[in-house]
Amino acid sequence: MMIPGPTNVPDRILQAMAKPMINHRGQEFHKLYDRLVENMRYLFQTKGDVYALTSSGTGGVEAIIANVVERGEKIIVPVNGDFSHRIAGNVEYFGGVPVVLEVEWGKAPTAALIEEAVQKERDAKVLFVIYNETSTGTLTKEMREIAEVARKYDRLLVVDAISNLGGDLLPMDEWGVDIVVGGSQKCLACPPGLALVACGQRAWDFVKPRKAGSNYWDFHKYKSFDARKETPFTPAVNLYFALDEALLMLREEGLENRIARHARMSGAFYAAVEALGLELFADPSCRSNTVVAVKNPSGVNVGKMRQVMEEKYDVIITGGMGAVRDTTFRIGSMGIVSPFEVRETVEALEYGLEAVGYKFNAGAGLEAAERALS
Amino acid sequence: MMIPGPTNVPDRILQAMAKPMINHRGQEFHKLYDRLVENMRYLFQTKGDVYALTSSGTGGVEAIIANVVERGEKIIVPVNGDFSHRIAGNVEYFGGVPVVLEVEWGKAPTAALIEEAVQKERDAKVLFVIYNETSTGTLTKEMREIAEVARKYDRLLVVDAISNLGGDLLPMDEWGVDIVVGGSQKCLACPPGLALVACGQRAWDFVKPRKAGSNYWDFHKYKSFDARKETPFTPAVNLYFALDEALLMLREEGLENRIARHARMSGAFYAAVEALGLELFADPSCRSNTVVAVKNPSGVNVGKMRQVMEEKYDVIITGGMGAVRDTTFRIGSMGIVSPFEVRETVEALEYGLEAVGYKFNAGAGLEAAERALS
Repeated sequence: MMIPGPTNVPDRILQAMAKPMINHRGQEFHKLYDRLVENMRYLFQTKGDVYALTSSGTGGVEAIIANVVERGEKIIVPVNGDFSHRIAGNVEYFGGVPVVLEVEWGKAPTAALIEEAVQKERDAKVLFVIYNETSTGTLTKEMREIAEVARKYDRLLVVDAISNLGGDLLPMDEWGVDIVVGGSQKCLACPPGLALVACGQRAWDFVKPRKAGSNYWDFHKYKSFDARKETPFTPAVNLYFALDEALLMLREEGLENRIARHARMSGAFYAAVEALGLELFADPSCRSNTVVAVKNPSGVNVGKMRQVMEEKYDVIITGGMGAVRDTTFRIGSMGIVSPFEVRETVEALEYGLEAVGYKFNAGAGLEAAERALS
Repeated sequence: MMIPGPTNVPDRILQAMAKPMINHRGQEFHKLYDRLVENMRYLFQTKGDVYALTSSGTGGVEAIIANVVERGEKIIVPVNGDFSHRIAGNVEYFGGVPVVLEVEWGKAPTAALIEEAVQKERDAKVLFVIYNETSTGTLTKEMREIAEVARKYDRLLVVDAISNLGGDLLPMDEWGVDIVVGGSQKCLACPPGLALVACGQRAWDFVKPRKAGSNYWDFHKYKSFDARKETPFTPAVNLYFALDEALLMLREEGLENRIARHARMSGAFYAAVEALGLELFADPSCRSNTVVAVKNPSGVNVGKMRQVMEEKYDVIITGGMGAVRDTTFRIGSMGIVSPFEVRETVEALEYGLEAVGYKFNAGAGLEAAERALS
């Protein structure tokens, strides 16, 4: 499984998940809740409030929008791929007005772009910026500078880090990011079904009680249950067990080491893909450390290639999304990804490319990957 | 674990849940999706559309409201406990106007009450009725007659069967129920984290595309992905594995047998509790088959009693909720509950009652339970 999440899940996490049920209003759960809060704060690098919502990542994005968007209010949303496009759509669902900053797909929004928009849209109090565009393999490299813009103009900065939380640096308190959403099934290598949300202190100035056009997503409900070390609604208890173990593994490895590992593994993929003469989709200035997006080589049946990779090597990568659905393919490089997975995937990729008649120097990808890894 | 959900989860289900991750856009998932649809249709007794939403049951309730409520629209909601009270509150979140029919807690809404309201509130097109009030252990016995009222006056009937789907009869097509929501962690003995929703054919006349004030809950999104045998957003794949196994177990047992077992086990609890001289909270006319609600005997520290039961017998029951939080306690009798759990729980209850100085004939509860079981 080398798709951009869900990732392969380590056995330790699967076994932790399969523990017998506990009472979600009892002491054992309270201890679990305490540990989750402590370790999620480590993950987000925040002293703020952290919640694990029972939902997919998209649910987490919607939860934030439900809490920060008022009807008719403008929200600045740079769009450089399918997921940021969806954020803008989601703002509309809640009656907000997305101010879309179109960015060429494959490039990332810059601090200058955001600053210009902030100066122009004086009544847009919220910025919702994607940190890693999963659909295009693009990292918003200037996130720290974007946070500086948010602070300078006193705007709320929301960051969608679903596909790179734990795989890229995002010290939210230090940088001054207000709300962050991440997913369980990405760099944490945990099963899907939990959206992780962190709310910094300033966020609560925007998130008013009962402002949310939703009960399930209402952050004030979560905040009010925080003192009891419980969630307002029955959580996915077994996924909490899994998250607990995944965060323990993160602490054992260390956040910095995990981030470095993600950069190293994706670096090996980039080296391999280029050595095979394939073209990367993302601009060199903003390549993702967790998702490797590749342009489909012309005259090659990429669907067939992926099928061969799966059937012969049991390696699953994925296609494109949205506007680049039929012109790109993507390799997920996240979670417990190690040199083993890189080698297996590159080997399978070479085999698949050969099977569909793509011309390249056999072994060049693997060699480049090895060089990058060593 | 004898709380009204989550229940104890059979090892078979826990092990199924811990299987390695699969691609939620791949063939293996498509096969899983097919089986889930077939078996959920069996559970709901419908030919309609069925979805497993990644959320708690409350999320499922919210999803339905998001899809059927328009701003300013009236929704008839009988309220006889904390969960039906929450439904009314949830309608307000989405800008709807709940027409609350107050029913004495411990009693159930009747078809006559609903018919009267329907005649009076001609512009209320939707009825949202709870089938089993978890907070008070009350079953809406006249659900079939309520469905007849809905059909007679051409109203949409939504049923919250979260805590008794699979434990009470609810053949939605035969009775003419339009939308039903159930939970994974109740009578199916599956872990929490999935809300099961069924939409009958007529439901789609009410649920218009993009009407939902939500992206995550938009049933049309789910419907549009149905043909691909996928979900619009990454589901909790491992919980899908668990649900798959739980539904397989349901089919092995048979829905009718499972319902009969729930009635038999709760019957034994009722017999035991009454033999101990305790008073039941629900009226005899509408006692739940899945949740046994008991009035706290006067002069007895029920919190202490529950603590003793947990510490000495490892049996966990729970307290009251909402307006009866401090005056009732509850025993969950759902999922894989068998004579073994009934005996263990009644034994623990007797022990706990004795420990806090409640006077009763020792062994009377167990004897009554045995008689009811045999």
